[in-house]
Amino acid sequence: MRWESVGETTCSVARALSVVGERWTMLILREAFLGRRHFDEFQARTGVARNILSARLRALVRNGIFERVENAAPAERVEYRLTAKGLDLYPILVAMLRWGDKWMACEGGPPVELVHRECGHKTHPTLVCSHCGGKIDARTTTPVIRAIPAQRTGGASKVRARLNLQRRSE
Amino acid sequence: MRWESVGETTCSVARALSVVGERWTMLILREAFLGRRHFDEFQARTGVARNILSARLRALVRNGIFERVENAAPAERVEYRLTAKGLDLYPILVAMLRWGDKWMACEGGPPVELVHRECGHKTHPTLVCSHCGGKIDARTTTPVIRAIPAQRTGGASKVRARLNLQRRSE
Repeated sequence: MRWESVGETTCSVARALSVVGERWTMLILREAFLGRRHFDEFQARTGVARNILSARLRALVRNGIFERVENAAPAERVEYRLTAKGLDLYPILVAMLRWGDKWMACEGGPPVELVHRECGHKTHPTLVCSHCGGKIDARTTTPVIRAIPAQRTGGASKVRARLNLQRRSE
Repeated sequence: MRWESVGETTCSVARALSVVGERWTMLILREAFLGRRHFDEFQARTGVARNILSARLRALVRNGIFERVENAAPAERVEYRLTAKGLDLYPILVAMLRWGDKWMACEGGPPVELVHRECGHKTHPTLVCSHCGGKIDARTTTPVIRAIPAQRTGGASKVRARLNLQRRSE
């Protein structure tokens, strides 16, 4: 399968990756979540080549992640603002941040810390169950593949099946 | 900056992306979290070309995400098992799944649902604050950039700075 077809599959992960599954795109989004809005800021902060940045920004606007706003004078700088759809990507960035902090830490400790404005404390965001509030991880969760009318299944089975997660201890 | 240098930056997101920031890699990981362990399963379920799959699996082993296990007879099939470092990638996949379900849903509804084994219910994993348990999203959290001894800063500022998140409403 060519990558271009992956966005048409029924898998939500693959669909998400068709929009944000590119490394420079994720770094641009990191900058957006740090408050940057301008082409030159994205370029300077990520080091991405200008032609690649242009292409990625166009795609992010086309996919509804950024809203492109042309300001009036004096600045007349184009702004790229995260939409609601874009802001909802935050948990993906946070999950990457936390994994990087844990497994690829640099000597000086985490370069970015998060403060939860509602309580005012440093926070290590954690995934919990929407039903019981218990911690969610690969060992405590089972994916259930639903029957979806067959088109491109892209990894989703046509039959409902319970799959036990792979565990290292097995 | 060339992509190859990004893993050396002090940004945890960039470091994480240097390992998992590739679309086929994420689809391979999706399959691993669904319990697949063999080359042919990964290939059949993702549709990735065999040479790309070989390269991605080698990189995932080299980076400590998969453990490569050569089984004895009769099967003699090589298994790729998620390590603890690999299992910890789960929140990234879950965040992508949830975003895809919300913003790129297919007609038949979510193709995969998650069941929390500890409570036995369907779950929509949610990010919460480790301090107060409140919901975490881009609007309720502030990133604080820490001073890290300058090497390659890659987006982390050399000065401590509080940045307000970009909001659409501004």
